Amino acid sequence: VNPTLTAVAAHATPDVQAQSDDRGITIDRVGIRRLRYPLLLATPSGPQATVAEWELTVELDARERGTHMSRFVETLEAFADVAMSGRRLMQMLAVLRDRLDAPRTDARCTLTQFIERAAPISEQRAQHVIDCSFVASSSVEREQLTLGVRVPITTLCPCSKEISEYGAHNQRGYVSISAELEPTSDLGFLDLLAIAERSGSAVVYPLLKRVDERHVTMQAYDSPTFVEDVVRNAALGLIGDPRVIGFTVEAENNESIHDHSAVASVNWRRQ
Amino acid sequence: VNPTLTAVAAHATPDVQAQSDDRGITIDRVGIRRLRYPLLLATPSGPQATVAEWELTVELDARERGTHMSRFVETLEAFADVAMSGRRLMQMLAVLRDRLDAPRTDARCTLTQFIERAAPISEQRAQHVIDCSFVASSSVEREQLTLGVRVPITTLCPCSKEISEYGAHNQRGYVSISAELEPTSDLGFLDLLAIAERSGSAVVYPLLKRVDERHVTMQAYDSPTFVEDVVRNAALGLIGDPRVIGFTVEAENNESIHDHSAVASVNWRRQ
Amino acid sequence: VNPTLTAVAAHATPDVQAQSDDRGITIDRVGIRRLRYPLLLATPSGPQATVAEWELTVELDARERGTHMSRFVETLEAFADVAMSGRRLMQMLAVLRDRLDAPRTDARCTLTQFIERAAPISEQRAQHVIDCSFVASSSVEREQLTLGVRVPITTLCPCSKEISEYGAHNQRGYVSISAELEPTSDLGFLDLLAIAERSGSAVVYPLLKRVDERHVTMQAYDSPTFVEDVVRNAALGLIGDPRVIGFTVEAENNESIHDHSAVASVNWRRQ
Amino acid sequence: VNPTLTAVAAHATPDVQAQSDDRGITIDRVGIRRLRYPLLLATPSGPQATVAEWELTVELDARERGTHMSRFVETLEAFADVAMSGRRLMQMLAVLRDRLDAPRTDARCTLTQFIERAAPISEQRAQHVIDCSFVASSSVEREQLTLGVRVPITTLCPCSKEISEYGAHNQRGYVSISAELEPTSDLGFLDLLAIAERSGSAVVYPLLKRVDERHVTMQAYDSPTFVEDVVRNAALGLIGDPRVIGFTVEAENNESIHDHSAVASVNWRRQ
Repeated sequence: VNPTLTAVAAHATPDVQAQSDDRGITIDRVGIRRLRYPLLLATPSGPQATVAEWELTVELDARERGTHMSRFVETLEAFADVAMSGRRLMQMLAVLRDRLDAPRTDARCTLTQFIERAAPISEQRAQHVIDCSFVASSSVEREQLTLGVRVPITTLCPCSKEISEYGAHNQRGYVSISAELEPTSDLGFLDLLAIAERSGSAVVYPLLKRVDERHVTMQAYDSPTFVEDVVRNAALGLIGDPRVIGFTVEAENNESIHDHSAVASVNWRRQ
Repeated sequence: VNPTLTAVAAHATPDVQAQSDDRGITIDRVGIRRLRYPLLLATPSGPQATVAEWELTVELDARERGTHMSRFVETLEAFADVAMSGRRLMQMLAVLRDRLDAPRTDARCTLTQFIERAAPISEQRAQHVIDCSFVASSSVEREQLTLGVRVPITTLCPCSKEISEYGAHNQRGYVSISAELEPTSDLGFLDLLAIAERSGSAVVYPLLKRVDERHVTMQAYDSPTFVEDVVRNAALGLIGDPRVIGFTVEAENNESIHDHSAVASVNWRRQ
Repeated sequence: VNPTLTAVAAHATPDVQAQSDDRGITIDRVGIRRLRYPLLLATPSGPQATVAEWELTVELDARERGTHMSRFVETLEAFADVAMSGRRLMQMLAVLRDRLDAPRTDARCTLTQFIERAAPISEQRAQHVIDCSFVASSSVEREQLTLGVRVPITTLCPCSKEISEYGAHNQRGYVSISAELEPTSDLGFLDLLAIAERSGSAVVYPLLKRVDERHVTMQAYDSPTFVEDVVRNAALGLIGDPRVIGFTVEAENNESIHDHSAVASVNWRRQ
Repeated sequence: VNPTLTAVAAHATPDVQAQSDDRGITIDRVGIRRLRYPLLLATPSGPQATVAEWELTVELDARERGTHMSRFVETLEAFADVAMSGRRLMQMLAVLRDRLDAPRTDARCTLTQFIERAAPISEQRAQHVIDCSFVASSSVEREQLTLGVRVPITTLCPCSKEISEYGAHNQRGYVSISAELEPTSDLGFLDLLAIAERSGSAVVYPLLKRVDERHVTMQAYDSPTFVEDVVRNAALGLIGDPRVIGFTVEAENNESIHDHSAVASVNWRRQ
C-alpha cells in the first residue's frame, strides 16, 4: 500500500457522492447486491467455511446525493475472520451504520450450510446441504433479525392415496421458513431445519441404500401431507418455540403429476 | 367427454380436501405457482398474444383441510380468450373467489410485452421487450391492484466522469417499478415504462446503427446518473401521476467495474 | 425513417468493424445472444404467436476485425411475419449469411408452444406448455437442423416399488430430446413430445380432476421407470423414426427422496 | 451403524438395478446431478474450503438395467478430505469406475474460488470470486481433463469510442475458458484467470476507491475491445501456453446499450 499516493490522488478526485440533493426524496435502501464473499459461519459444531452472497444497504437522507459503495466491501472484509451469527451480524450492521453515518442499515445474506446426515437404517453418513439466510436491520431505535431456511422434503398426496387402489403420487417439496427473532436469540438454522423436516411426509437424504429407500418410501406413504398440512405443521412448530417473534412459512411442491407447483403460506406474529 | 363415467368415478372418489381441520391455523395463501399459460394482453394498440406465468392463491379458513387446485386452472382456461387488463384481472379474481368459496384471492402474473421501437437517428424499427407483472388481491372488503415493469436502461457514473480525464464507466441497469393503482385505473405498463426510461442516462434499444450508437453514447455521457439519481427521478415521475396510490421503485446497476451490483430503492404511499 | 440523414451520418462514422485483423484467429461464432423477440410458430393447427429467445452468430474470417451486430436484429425483424419452421429457419440463415457475407451462420432459438390437452378420464381441457428449441447451421457446403423439446413426465422408481410393502417414490422428471433432421424434414416438436411422453411412468397434465388423479396415480404405479428406462424407451422411439438422423436424449429426475437429480443420456447417429 | 441389520435388510431387498436389459441401448452417461457438496480445493496458497456442485456419471452397458446411485455419493464422501486438483479428480474417477464396474466415468464440478485482490492504486485488499469448473472423463484407454473459468471483465466498445466526440459505451462482460490439459498438468484456474483478464479493456475489482475508479475508467478508455478482440486475445494467450491441448473460449458482453448480449467464441486444438 502507498498511503501517500492514495492521499494525493484522493485530494485530486472530487467527492461527487457527497454533493447535496434537492429532489427531496429519502432513499430507503442504497448499497450493493450480488456480492459473493467467503463466510465463516458459526455452527453448533464450530465455524464452517462457506460462500455467501450479500446485499448490504443504508438509508440515505433526502439531502445527500449518494452513498460510498466501497465502504460496504471494506466492512465485510473487516469481518471476514469473524464466525458469523445473528449477534455478530447486528454488530457488523452497527459498525456499517457508523462508518456510513446512516440512520439505518439493512443486510440480506444467503449461504449454504452442510450437516452430516446418517441414513435412517444403514446409518451411512454423507453431507446434506441447507440453504440459509440472514435478514437484518439496524437503526438507533430498533434492531431486527430474521433467520431463514429452505428445506427439501418429500410430500405424498393424501388425496391421491385415498382415491387410488394402490400407489400415491409424491414429489420433492420445499419448506421455506423466515423466523423473526430477538437479535440476541440463540435460535439457529438447525432449529428451523428440525421444524421444517417434521412437517412433511418424509425427510430427504443425500445418501440412501436400498434398506433406507424402503424405509422412507413406506414412511412417506404412512404420512401423507398436502402443502396445506405442511405449512400448518411447521406453523405449529414455530408458534411452539417462544424464541420466535413472528414468521412466514411457505411450502412449495414440485407436483409430480403437473408441470407447475402447489404452494401454501402462513404469516404470523406473536401478540 | 363422458359425463356418466366422470360422475360415477367422482362418486367413488372421496373428497379429502373437504375434510375439516382442527389445527386452528388459517392459511393466508394456498394455490398454484409457476403455471405457464397463454395470455392475451390488452394494449393500447389492441390485444397482444404472449406467454404468462401465474401464481393464483386463496385464503383458506382454519377449519378446512385443503383447497381444490384444479379450479385455479379451470378459471384461467375460462378467461383464456379475454384481453387481460387490471380491470379484467379483478373480475377473474372475483370469479375465482366465488368458485372456491374463499374470503380472499391473490394473483401474481408475469409476462412479456413487445413494443415497436425506432432507433433515435436512423429511425430503424425493431421489437423491444418489456418484463411486466400484475399483482392483485380481491376480498369482499377490498380490491388491490399493482402493475410492475422491469426496464433496462443505460447508466453512466457521475463520479467516474467527474474524476477521470476522459471516459466514464457505464453499464446496463434495470429500473423496477411496482405501482399500486385504483383497480379501475387506466394506467398501463407503457406509462410505467415511460417513467422508468426518463430516469437513467440513456434509453436501451433493440437495434442501433452507427449513427444511433454515436447518439446514445454521447447522450449517456451528457446525463450521468447514480442508482440514487435513477430511483429519485423515477420516484418524482410516479408521485407526479395522480393515478399512482403508492409504489416501490428500485434501480440495479450491473456495474461494469465490479462483479456485483449497485442498488437503490424507494417506497412511497400517497397520504 | 430519413434515409438522407442516415446516409450522411453513416458517411461521417468510420466503420471500425470493417478494419482488418492480423491476429490470425478465425472466430467460429460471433453475434448476439439473449435477444427476446416475438415469434410466429408454424404448428399443425396453424401459426401460434409466442415469445422466443435467440442466439444468432456468424463465422468471422481471420482477417476481419468485427461483425455488424445490428444486421442480426434487422434479419429477425424482416422474418417477423413468417410462420417459423425448420425449413423457414434455414431460409433465414441463408439470408443472414448473405447479408453478413459470412461463410457460415448458426442459430439457437428457444420458445414455448402450447397445446390443448384433455385430462385422461374427465376429458377436461386446458393448455399444456412445451419447451422447444431450434438449433441450425448453414454454410454453402452443409445445412444442419436440430429440433429439441424438454418434456415433463412422472417417473415412479422400480426399485422403491419392488422393495417396499406399499407405496413407491415418484417425482417429476424431464425428458430432453435433441433430434437432428434433414433440413426439409416435416418432423415437428409434437412428434418429439409424443416419443418423450411414451417413455416415462405417466404423462403430466395441466388440469386433473379427482378421477383423473386416481387414473394417473395407478398408471404410474403400474409402469415404473428408472432414468435408464426412460432414455432407452425414448431412444428406441427415436431410432424407429426414419426422419431422425441422430439424437441426444436425456432424462433427469428431480428425485423426491434426495435434494439432487438422477440423470441418464444416450447419443446416437444413424449409420 | 448396525452392519447386521444392514446385511439382513439388504438380503431382503431385491437388486432391481442389477436386472438384465434387452433393449440393446448402451447408456452414455447415468448418475447424479445438482449434488452440492463441501469441497477442499487445492490452490497455490493451500487448500481452500468451498462449495461445489457435482454431476457424476458412468457409462452403462447395454445389458445392465441400472446403475447404483448411492455409490456416487459414497465416493464423494470418501474423498471429502482430499485437497481437490485435476490429478486428484482423475484418481477419484478411477476409484468410481472400479466401484461401479463401469467402462467409463465422467465428472463435471462447478465451484467458486476466492483470491485476495488489491485495488490498482490504493492497493486496498478484498476477496474476489472466480467461477471455476472441472470436467473430466476416465476410461481404461483414455483420461481427459478440462479446467474452466468464467471471468468478469470490463469491455469498452472501439466503435462507440471512434464515432463519438466524447465517451464510449462500456459494460461488464464475461470471458469463459474451457482448456483441455494433460491429466497430470500443473496448470490451474489462476493461470486461466490471468489469460482471461489480459484480454479485455480492464480488470474487474471487488473494491475500488475513487483513485482506483479513475484509473480503471481511463484504462478501459485507452484499451477498447470488441467481443471479437477479447476472444482473439484470450485465444493467443491459450495457444501460447504449451500445457493447453485445446480450448473453447467465449466472450459475452452484457451490452449497456441493448437488452441482449454480444458473443464470440473460438474453438481450437493443438495439432
